[in-house]
Amino acid sequence: MDTPARTQSTRLDPYVDRYAARTAGMTASEIRALFAVASRPEVVSLAGGMPNISGLPLDVVGEAISGLLRDNGPMALQYSSGQGEPELREQITEVMRLEGINAHPDDVVVTVGSQQAVDLVTRVFCDPGDVVICEAPSYVGALGVFKAYQCDVVHAEVDADGLVPEALRQAIAAVKAAGKRIKFLYTIPNFHNPAGVTMTAERRLEVIDICRREGVLVLEDNPYGLLGFDQEPMRAIRADAPDGVIYLGSFSKTFSPGMRVGWALAPHSVREKLVLAQESATLCPPTFNQFAVSAYLREHDWQGQIKQMREMYRERRDAMNEALHDLMPASCEWNVPAGGFFVWLKLPPGVDAKGMLPRAVTARVAYVPGTAFFADGFGTGYMRLSFCYPTPERIREGVRRLAGVLEAEMELRETFGASAPPRRIGGGYDGPTSDLT
Amino acid sequence: MDTPARTQSTRLDPYVDRYAARTAGMTASEIRALFAVASRPEVVSLAGGMPNISGLPLDVVGEAISGLLRDNGPMALQYSSGQGEPELREQITEVMRLEGINAHPDDVVVTVGSQQAVDLVTRVFCDPGDVVICEAPSYVGALGVFKAYQCDVVHAEVDADGLVPEALRQAIAAVKAAGKRIKFLYTIPNFHNPAGVTMTAERRLEVIDICRREGVLVLEDNPYGLLGFDQEPMRAIRADAPDGVIYLGSFSKTFSPGMRVGWALAPHSVREKLVLAQESATLCPPTFNQFAVSAYLREHDWQGQIKQMREMYRERRDAMNEALHDLMPASCEWNVPAGGFFVWLKLPPGVDAKGMLPRAVTARVAYVPGTAFFADGFGTGYMRLSFCYPTPERIREGVRRLAGVLEAEMELRETFGASAPPRRIGGGYDGPTSDLT
Repeated sequence: MDTPARTQSTRLDPYVDRYAARTAGMTASEIRALFAVASRPEVVSLAGGMPNISGLPLDVVGEAISGLLRDNGPMALQYSSGQGEPELREQITEVMRLEGINAHPDDVVVTVGSQQAVDLVTRVFCDPGDVVICEAPSYVGALGVFKAYQCDVVHAEVDADGLVPEALRQAIAAVKAAGKRIKFLYTIPNFHNPAGVTMTAERRLEVIDICRREGVLVLEDNPYGLLGFDQEPMRAIRADAPDGVIYLGSFSKTFSPGMRVGWALAPHSVREKLVLAQESATLCPPTFNQFAVSAYLREHDWQGQIKQMREMYRERRDAMNEALHDLMPASCEWNVPAGGFFVWLKLPPGVDAKGMLPRAVTARVAYVPGTAFFADGFGTGYMRLSFCYPTPERIREGVRRLAGVLEAEMELRETFGASAPPRRIGGGYDGPTSDLT
Repeated sequence: MDTPARTQSTRLDPYVDRYAARTAGMTASEIRALFAVASRPEVVSLAGGMPNISGLPLDVVGEAISGLLRDNGPMALQYSSGQGEPELREQITEVMRLEGINAHPDDVVVTVGSQQAVDLVTRVFCDPGDVVICEAPSYVGALGVFKAYQCDVVHAEVDADGLVPEALRQAIAAVKAAGKRIKFLYTIPNFHNPAGVTMTAERRLEVIDICRREGVLVLEDNPYGLLGFDQEPMRAIRADAPDGVIYLGSFSKTFSPGMRVGWALAPHSVREKLVLAQESATLCPPTFNQFAVSAYLREHDWQGQIKQMREMYRERRDAMNEALHDLMPASCEWNVPAGGFFVWLKLPPGVDAKGMLPRAVTARVAYVPGTAFFADGFGTGYMRLSFCYPTPERIREGVRRLAGVLEAEMELRETFGASAPPRRIGGGYDGPTSDLT
């Protein structure tokens, strides 16, 4: 209770020995630090995953919101249920039908973005030391949640066809051999963040089969599923395993992230727990936002809007791919994503993406180093490049700057020698991670 | 992974042995079950704590929101920082200044209602088994959070002047003697939910002094502070103990609960942890809602609006107090709250509020039984009556029905004999609770 020192640089935390054990796992993510950098206008940010919402019809949104205040103002501004508004949950089942999911609105829980759905699912299932199996790499925001709940993350590799079934089998076997409990597999099957890959239909069935045999629940996170560039939406894992999957969806990428409206579709008994967890966390998700999203879906050609978004993002994907081809050193490798926001780039041997970042920012380009997407320190030889937000011209300029930084880096390395290559380069599964041993 | 039985009444939970230990503490609150009942139009609900927002100027709100979409749409619909929008945090410091708080916007964290602030503070501070000291009675939603984080709640009595300092001292001593760690005191100093009482200025200084000496952090929850009927806002506890208090505020009672915008003001080092916890929980609180509240505060005479609300609630408080005087059995006791939403009613000896509730609902009146507001099973002889939502006429009708139910109950008890009175009646502190022994 002593007065903390007022000088920023010497400030001590008088509460340092009072926090919960879990709080030690809450650390500023690499993405967070980058948000400050990326917001400077002279920097081309290929770092953030902010959707480009410049195409949204603000007049339509404004009209929909004015209408809902006029017609339902007192309800939209009032408390509502922890589970979410019935009309929106009905509409959510229609959205999911595009991916082959046949669900009842009663099994949907509305959340404050799908980030909160990851939080609530983890809250309901995971004691400290429980294992969550994640793809290698995996979404940094989900890894942060698992860490905050003191879970052990065990990675299983992805390749160009998504999660590798054999890697999943081996990860499960290793965890079981170590006597630990697996609470779920966390997977992003479509247009993976950060890997950009999509799990094939065959692999989905194989993953369902493995998880059913092994008694592993699947947490299917699908923010980008409707943002494929060249194809109709894939059939969700949930569509073929209604009792073994908790499915997470979001309006952040197809409408507005600032509304923070996502959802979980869960087996009935799990849904009940999630509603209780939501009531404890927020009493109810924001009523107003649910009415606003409902009105937008009802009054606007939202599927036509998504079609426009897909075309915009495809153009940017193409711009990034062309620029990478034209400008990057030949020893770089990357995928060409069929949808979503991200290219996952493998650097020439010996280059450390995290170490190089300050020099990149000095050269006015930002990215996310690969290590952010692993719980175990791997990923130094990778970076995530986002093509969602900048214009094609800015993307090309960003890649040009990045190529310059990388070439300088490689010259330095040739002159002074490279450090050892990161262990996971090569993509093969290399056994249980350090979390288990 | 077996298919659960489809019949509601025989449905088994296939996940029952997979949940986290904390999930056992997540149970449907008595208030939750009541929401369903209270929503039937023929029932006079004196149960829910929903603010009456019928006086809100929907045209002003609509205009403010149209304007923000026009001027700042792409920002309002986008992701934002985990801490919250700078303009709103600045305005929040102005709101808190009405209670004598001198704070920097940098120490404010915006939350999804102040419920989420209780959740995040508990997340950051409490390991399973840690003790939170709560008033007896205390807010049911906060007790639910503490239970979900596996805290032990130890109660300290309130009387007509708020938390009893001697009860606080004894509670702290008992916890320390039991070798447990106290993480904070949770207190609602103004127009207490459910007790209706307000902590006197002298008591506030005494509580600060006790907590400073004993090294106990104070969590000051203040949703109703600006809703006093006959007086200017009291000076917040935080105003006199900036380093020892986390202060929680909310726009739910002074503007709109459906917006879910609340906040925590915390010592600097704690604020940093809360931002990390918020990022993990939601990435960011809803951007749109923050812009909307900002615009409302900027463009509307919000203090004038609160004055109208205070007059409306005072009229309802008076209606309830008069009806209780006119209609209830002489052996009932209750306080006359100087603000807020709630009357805390002590029933005649032997009457069990929870047991009587089904008969009350049959008579088309609802309330919350006192047991909801204790972590330890006390409170059977009490009920919370809300005067915030129904009209004065409905309040009178509700009290009339309640008096009828109570008289019938007392007749029954006279005929068949009463059960033992609940232990905590009388208001004195009676030692450490069952949580500690």
